[in-house]
Formats: sequence, C-alpha cells, structure tokens
Amino acid sequence: MSRIIRTEPTAILSRAVEYHGFVYTSGVLARDLGKDIKGQTEEVLAEIDATLEIHGTDKTRLLQAQIWLKHIGDRAAMNEIWSAWLPKDGAPVRACVEAALADPRALVEIQVVACK
Amino acid sequence: MSRIIRTEPTAILSRAVEYHGFVYTSGVLARDLGKDIKGQTEEVLAEIDATLEIHGTDKTRLLQAQIWLKHIGDRAAMNEIWSAWLPKDGAPVRACVEAALADPRALVEIQVVACK
Amino acid sequence: MSRIIRTEPTAILSRAVEYHGFVYTSGVLARDLGKDIKGQTEEVLAEIDATLEIHGTDKTRLLQAQIWLKHIGDRAAMNEIWSAWLPKDGAPVRACVEAALADPRALVEIQVVACK
Repeated sequence: MSRIIRTEPTAILSRAVEYHGFVYTSGVLARDLGKDIKGQTEEVLAEIDATLEIHGTDKTRLLQAQIWLKHIGDRAAMNEIWSAWLPKDGAPVRACVEAALADPRALVEIQVVACK
Repeated sequence: MSRIIRTEPTAILSRAVEYHGFVYTSGVLARDLGKDIKGQTEEVLAEIDATLEIHGTDKTRLLQAQIWLKHIGDRAAMNEIWSAWLPKDGAPVRACVEAALADPRALVEIQVVACK
Repeated sequence: MSRIIRTEPTAILSRAVEYHGFVYTSGVLARDLGKDIKGQTEEVLAEIDATLEIHGTDKTRLLQAQIWLKHIGDRAAMNEIWSAWLPKDGAPVRACVEAALADPRALVEIQVVACK
C-alpha cells in the first residue's frame, strides 16, 4: 500500500489528495462570489495554483480538468482567463458542461488531476 | 500491459474496474428510489462499501468522489450522511453539482476512485 | 518525474494526455451536430477510437467513462450505440447524467480514461 497524502481534510472533502504521483483536487469555487465569470475564474485558478504548489507540482503538470459553468454561455469569457493561465502547449484534457453549483452565486467550478 | 480487473461487467458498464492499484467505480444510484435524499445516500454509500470490499480496499482509501444531486438544495442533507460515513480525516477530493439522473426518482448519484 | 505526452494541445485543451500508462481524453462532441443522438454517439465513439489508437491503446483498455446527455431521455438510444461499440465483458465504469453542452446542437459528450 502506497501512502495517501490528504491536504486540509474537512468533514466533507479534502482540498487535495496525492497518491502514487497523482494529485487530485476538489472542485474549487471562487472565494468572492460577487465577482463576474472572469473574476471568479481567476480566483479559482489561483486557488488551484496554490493547491498544486502544496503538493510540489504546478500547472505545467495538469492531466485532466472538469469545468462546470452555471451558464454555459459564459464559456467564451471563462476560456479567455483559462487560456491565459495555461502554459503554452500544456493544456490538460477537459470537459466543460453546465450545472447548478453548491452556491447560487457561483458561476464556475473547476476540478483537476495533475501529476508530480 | 498490466492486468485490468472488471467486476460485474454488463452491456453498458462495469460495477468497478481495477488497474495498477486504482479502483474506479461506476456512478451508483440507490436501489430503493422511493426513499428520500438521506435514505438514498445511505444506500449508495453501502453499495460503494460493498464494491470496494470486492477489490480488497475500503473507504479509508478514497481518492476522488463526484456527486450529482437532482436538487442541489439537497446538499446539506446528503452531506450529513456523507460526513457520518467518511473516516475521520479521510475525505477524498470531491465535486458536487446538480444534474438530472438516469431515473427521475433518483436524487443522488456518487462515483468514486479509490486505491488499494 | 515521468513524461507527459499531450496530443494536439490547443489553447484550451489537449485531445489526449498520457502519463504513466494512463490515457485521458477530452470530452468529445460529434463533428456533425446535425445528426440525431445515435449518429452523434457513433461519431463521438469513432473519435475516441482514433484518439486511443494514437496512444497505442484501444477500447478493450477502457477504465472510466463519463457521459453527458443534453436530454437524459436519450439514454436508451445512446446506450444502443454504446453497447454495440463496447467489447464483450469489457465495459468501463460509467456515470451518465444530463447537462447542457458547449454547443446547443450537441446531444452527447463522452470523456474516457483508458490505459495502455
């Protein structure tokens, strides 16, 4: 059995879980849910950066991303921030669909799998 | 090529697939869809326990969970059952969004990735 | 650090990402979005076949699939094509839920994880 490393486990989720060189993150919402889609996406990606750093990796090692948008019509605006954040030629695989999220003010949620 | 172990493959899905120490489960619905959100969540988690046991692992080795709720407003009630089920400090990463499910009576679907 | 292989990275996603024997694909839409659910499913699965082949694997090595349907009522029709495509006793684990997709004409999106 390899070791599982859990970052900031709460009663419902861990911020990240690392196993065998893979780093899984929870779906992240913006902290300031008063921001628009671009502002919320920036906050979510900054949080993912910080989470990956805790596990000794970064956005150049992304494998998979899932993105949920409250309004699928926000996709182009979210993509602007997303593409600017990604390293050149370093995009993960991705699925992006519409879904109502835990907080009605939340416009975007992103969950990733990275490796070390 | 490492060996892939499939549990109860049907024409559309396997109950679980194990590869290289990782155990993936299908999205699970309650058997009794007449139950409320708490009752359905209990049934789903019991099924996940049984599935993980088949693969020689258990809920202390959860890496990732995805949860779909028919009504996102059921999140707090589902979380009560979910948190009571999780081992202390053993939460996986998680995303939880709203979605219509295969059966209109289904209120919750949960899919996990664990390891051995 | 093991090597990450990215196939056809764009500004927003890679068609597939391979790491440590795992092959992740992006969520795939049909090319011809004028087709019905069966036609779109056939196109999506043909695209997944081609993607897996690029990475030296195929549909006999599927681990996990996630399927989003614009109309959950299309599930039975999608399943017909899906089951005919799967190898006997070779189904991955699966979750299938309803979601609005990037293009309003898109009826189905499928994302898989396979291994080599």
